[in-house]
Amino acid sequence: SAELVSWASLAPLSVRDKHANKGHFGRLLCIGGNRGMGGAIRLSAEAALRSGVGLVKVFCHEQSQWQVSTGRPEIMLNIDSGTAALKAALDWCTCIVLGPGLGTDSWAQSQFEQVLCYVQLSQKPLLIDADGLNLLALKKAQSTHLSLPMCIVTPHPGEAARLLDTRVKDIEQNRYRACQDIAQQYGVVVVLKGAGTVIGSSQTNEVQVCADGNPGMATAGMGDVLSGVIAAMIAQGLVAQLAATYGVCLHAAAGDRVASIYGQRGMIAGDLFEPLRTLLNYQ
Amino acid sequence: SAELVSWASLAPLSVRDKHANKGHFGRLLCIGGNRGMGGAIRLSAEAALRSGVGLVKVFCHEQSQWQVSTGRPEIMLNIDSGTAALKAALDWCTCIVLGPGLGTDSWAQSQFEQVLCYVQLSQKPLLIDADGLNLLALKKAQSTHLSLPMCIVTPHPGEAARLLDTRVKDIEQNRYRACQDIAQQYGVVVVLKGAGTVIGSSQTNEVQVCADGNPGMATAGMGDVLSGVIAAMIAQGLVAQLAATYGVCLHAAAGDRVASIYGQRGMIAGDLFEPLRTLLNYQ
Amino acid sequence: SAELVSWASLAPLSVRDKHANKGHFGRLLCIGGNRGMGGAIRLSAEAALRSGVGLVKVFCHEQSQWQVSTGRPEIMLNIDSGTAALKAALDWCTCIVLGPGLGTDSWAQSQFEQVLCYVQLSQKPLLIDADGLNLLALKKAQSTHLSLPMCIVTPHPGEAARLLDTRVKDIEQNRYRACQDIAQQYGVVVVLKGAGTVIGSSQTNEVQVCADGNPGMATAGMGDVLSGVIAAMIAQGLVAQLAATYGVCLHAAAGDRVASIYGQRGMIAGDLFEPLRTLLNYQ
Amino acid sequence: SAELVSWASLAPLSVRDKHANKGHFGRLLCIGGNRGMGGAIRLSAEAALRSGVGLVKVFCHEQSQWQVSTGRPEIMLNIDSGTAALKAALDWCTCIVLGPGLGTDSWAQSQFEQVLCYVQLSQKPLLIDADGLNLLALKKAQSTHLSLPMCIVTPHPGEAARLLDTRVKDIEQNRYRACQDIAQQYGVVVVLKGAGTVIGSSQTNEVQVCADGNPGMATAGMGDVLSGVIAAMIAQGLVAQLAATYGVCLHAAAGDRVASIYGQRGMIAGDLFEPLRTLLNYQ
Repeated sequence: SAELVSWASLAPLSVRDKHANKGHFGRLLCIGGNRGMGGAIRLSAEAALRSGVGLVKVFCHEQSQWQVSTGRPEIMLNIDSGTAALKAALDWCTCIVLGPGLGTDSWAQSQFEQVLCYVQLSQKPLLIDADGLNLLALKKAQSTHLSLPMCIVTPHPGEAARLLDTRVKDIEQNRYRACQDIAQQYGVVVVLKGAGTVIGSSQTNEVQVCADGNPGMATAGMGDVLSGVIAAMIAQGLVAQLAATYGVCLHAAAGDRVASIYGQRGMIAGDLFEPLRTLLNYQ
Repeated sequence: SAELVSWASLAPLSVRDKHANKGHFGRLLCIGGNRGMGGAIRLSAEAALRSGVGLVKVFCHEQSQWQVSTGRPEIMLNIDSGTAALKAALDWCTCIVLGPGLGTDSWAQSQFEQVLCYVQLSQKPLLIDADGLNLLALKKAQSTHLSLPMCIVTPHPGEAARLLDTRVKDIEQNRYRACQDIAQQYGVVVVLKGAGTVIGSSQTNEVQVCADGNPGMATAGMGDVLSGVIAAMIAQGLVAQLAATYGVCLHAAAGDRVASIYGQRGMIAGDLFEPLRTLLNYQ
Repeated sequence: SAELVSWASLAPLSVRDKHANKGHFGRLLCIGGNRGMGGAIRLSAEAALRSGVGLVKVFCHEQSQWQVSTGRPEIMLNIDSGTAALKAALDWCTCIVLGPGLGTDSWAQSQFEQVLCYVQLSQKPLLIDADGLNLLALKKAQSTHLSLPMCIVTPHPGEAARLLDTRVKDIEQNRYRACQDIAQQYGVVVVLKGAGTVIGSSQTNEVQVCADGNPGMATAGMGDVLSGVIAAMIAQGLVAQLAATYGVCLHAAAGDRVASIYGQRGMIAGDLFEPLRTLLNYQ
Repeated sequence: SAELVSWASLAPLSVRDKHANKGHFGRLLCIGGNRGMGGAIRLSAEAALRSGVGLVKVFCHEQSQWQVSTGRPEIMLNIDSGTAALKAALDWCTCIVLGPGLGTDSWAQSQFEQVLCYVQLSQKPLLIDADGLNLLALKKAQSTHLSLPMCIVTPHPGEAARLLDTRVKDIEQNRYRACQDIAQQYGVVVVLKGAGTVIGSSQTNEVQVCADGNPGMATAGMGDVLSGVIAAMIAQGLVAQLAATYGVCLHAAAGDRVASIYGQRGMIAGDLFEPLRTLLNYQ
C-alpha cells in the first residue's frame, strides 16, 4: 500500500537560528563530473545551494572545472588530485552526493570505491545517483556483503532494473514492489523516479507516492537537480527518509510552478532553481 | 505555386502524455562545433531544448566543449574521441543535426562521412545545415548515387547555390524553383531560408512560404537556432515535412515576438529561446 | 567653436528593408583580446551585436577564445593562426575595430601592422581604440607618411596625449583643440572621450560635443562598448563622421538610461547592452 | 562597550563629480584565485564593481583566468607571470584586496610576501581576507615586528582564532574583546564576521556592531563579497575605519533586501550584487 504525499501537505521547515553560521546549514560534497560531464554535477550543486545548504563543494575531474564553476562562482571546487584530496574533502563535508556525471571508467570506479569505504566508517549520509547506481549494481553482483548505512539511492526505472538485475518492464509493472525490493536488498532509502515518484525504505513496508510533478520535467538534468535537493535537506538536518520525501515533493512542486508560469514544453532543469527557493521560503 | 503558412494557422501540437519520460520527447544528437566554432552548435542545441526535446547531446571538437556546455549545463556533451564514440552517440539518438560550426577541414569531413554512412542503414532522421551543406554539395559532385532518406536540408541562398552548382542570383530569381530543384536532386525536404522562407519536398510539387518573420532576424546564429527547432519537432514525433513547416513558422513567429517587444534592431539569436517556449506552450 | 549634439536631437535611422539578409547589416571584424584580455574585445563585439550589426567576428589570441564566446555564442570567432587567417577575416568584413585588449607585445604589433597595411589598399572603414592607439602613436613617431583613409580614432585623454606626444594636462586644458589637432595630424575622425565627449574630423574645422552621459559611466570597459557601437553604425551604412556622432550620443544616452533606472554608482559596461537596443528601436 | 551601527543610520555618500573619469573612483587590485579557486576572487571583484569602483583588476593563477572573467568581462585580468607582473599591478592600483581563494601553497605564499613588502613602502590601503589571514597568522608567529599601515582584516571566528592563536570558543565568548585584541596586536582595522559583525580599530577602544544582516547570509562566498564591498569604499575615498563601517552595513543591508524579497533560504552570494547597487544609489 502507498501513502500519497505532496509539497502542500508537508509541515514547514523550522525557522533559522539567528546566530547561525555557514556550518549550521551543512557542508555538502558533490562527487562526479568526469571529463565532458561537468554539467550534471553543476546542476546538482547549484540546486543544493538554492535549497539552502551553507557550503557546496564539487569534487570533479580536472577537465570539468570550468563547466562547474565559471557560471556559478559560489560553488566550491576540488579538482581531483588523488586519494588524499578526496579524503580531505570527505572529512570536510557533512553529506555526500555521488554519481551525477561520474561515468563508469577507471577514474569513476576509483572515486566510487573510496567513497563507499569511507562511509562504512564515517557514517556520513550518502546519496547515490546516476552512474553511481550503475557502479553500485556492479558492486552488489560481486560482493555478498554490502553495508550502506544512511544511504539514499535515486534510480530511474532503467537504473532500478540494473539494481535488481531485471528488466525495465518488470520495474514499471509494479513500481511499489520494485522500490521496496531495492530498499530491502540494499538496506537503503529508495527514490524510484518517474511519473508518480515512489519513496521507500528498508525500515518500513509502506511506500509513499508523490502527487506533484508533470511530464514537462522529463528532460535532461532533472535527476541531477533532484539529487542536490534531497541532499540539501539532509545537510540541513532532516533524517534520510524525511529528506527524501521533502526533496521529492519540493522538486516536483518546483517543476509544477515552472509549468504553471511558462508551460510544460521546453522546460529545462535549471528553470527549477528559482522556484525551489521560492517554495522553501514561502511554504 | 505556393501555399502561405504561418504559426497562427497551424494546429496545436498534442497534449503531453502524463506518464512520459525523457525518452518520449526524443534524444537529439547535434554534430558540429569544430575548433573555435562551438557557439553555433550550442545555439542549435539550446534551441532544441527550449523547443521541447527530452535530451540533447552535442558531439563536438574537444576544444569547443567549454563554449558548448559551460553556460547551459543541461546540454549533454560528447567530446570527439574517434569513430567508436560517434557510433555510440548515433546509436543513442533518435534524430540528428549535422553542420552548425562543423567547418570543412578533415575533422569535419570525417564526421560528415560517418554520419552519412550511418543514416543509410539506420534510417534515422537527419537535418543538414551550414557547413554540412557545403560538404554535401562536394559529395554530390563526386558521387552519382546519393541516398538521403528522411533528410531535411536548410540552406540559405549561398548554400543553395552551391547545392545546385549555380549562382546566388539564380537562386534569388526563382526561390520556389530553387527549393524544388534541391528537393528533387537530393531527394530531401528543403527549407530555403531568406525573407519568406520556402519549404519544399521531393514528394510534392507544391512549396510552402512562411508568412512570419522580420528583417531583424538577419543576424548571426539565427540559422543555427532554426536547425535546432526543426530537429526538435522531428524528435517529438512529427514527420520531416510537417516538422519543417512547424519549425520554420515557430522560429519566425518567435522572431516576430522579440521584435514586437524589443524592436528589430539589435536582436540576437539567443533572444528567441524564451519566445520559442512561450509560443509552444500557448499556441 | 563647438556644436552641442545629443541623442534626442538626431534624426532616426531609416526603417529596415524587409528583404534584408545578414549581409545587409554589415560584417564587423573586431581585432584584439590578447592573452588575458579577452573581456575587452567581447564587450566591443557584444555592443556591436546589440547595436544592430548582422555579423560580428572576433579575431583574438587563442587563449582568449573562451572569454570571448562562451557567454555570447552569437559572436563568431577567429582564433589567431597566422597571417593567412587574418587576411581571410579582413577580406570577409565590411568594417574593422582594432585595439580593445590588443596589448602592445609582438603579437599585438603583428596584427596592428597587417591591419594598417590592409586598409591602405582596401579602403575599408577602420576604428582604432585602446592599445591600438598606443601602437598608432608609436608608428606615427617612426614614419613621416601615414595614410588612414576612412579611419576613426577614439582616445581617452591619456591616449590623446600619446597621439600628440604631449601631456594629459595639455589635452584637458583645451579639449576642442586637442581633438582637432589629432584629426589634422592623422587625417582621421576623432572621438575624444571624457565628460563631454568631443567629435572632430580632418575635413571640418568645427567640433561637436555630446551633451549626454554621466559620471557613472567612468568605469572599466565603457570605451570598449563605445568602439563597438560606433563601428556598428558604420557597418550599417553611416559615413565615418556621422557614425561617430550617432555612436557617441547613443552610447551616452544608454548610460543615462541605466543611471535613471538603477543609479550611477555600480554601473558596469555590460549594463548598456539592453538600453542600446531599446534606444535604437524606439528613437 | 559597543556602538550599534546600521545602513539606515549612515550619512549618504557624496554626489559624484560630473567631470570624473575612471581613475576618480579608484583602481582596485584583487589578489587571489589560486588553481581551482577562481570563484572566490571573482565574487570579490564583481562586488567591488557593483559598489562603484572605477576599475577592478584581478591578479590570479593562470588556471583561474576563465572562472574570473568569462562571466564578467568588465573585470580586468592579470595572469600571474612572475614578480614583475605583480609589481606592475601593485603600482597601478590605489587599493588592494588580498586573500579570497588565495590558498596557502607556495604560489600563495609568494604573492602574500610580495604584497606585504610592497605595502610597507607604498602605504597603499590593503584588505586581507580568507587564506590571506591564515598566512598572516603564520607570519605573525614568526616575526617580532610586523607593520601593517592602512590595513583592514576581515576574519570569521575561525580565522580570528588563528590570528590570536586561540580557540573559536574563546572568540565567540567575547567577540568585542577578540576584535579589539586583533586590532591591537596587528595594528589594523578589524571586521570580525558573524551574527552581529563587530568592527574595531587599533586607534580606538570602542567597537561597533552591525545591526543589519540575517542568517540566510551564512553561505559560501558571502565573505568574498564583503571584502570587495569594503575595498570599494576605500577605493572611492573613505578612510579605512569608515570604509569598514560603510562596507559592513551596506553588505548586511543588501542581504536583508534579498531576504525580504526572496526569503532567507537558498540565498547565494551573487544575489547581493544588484541590491548593493540599489542601496548605494538610493541611500
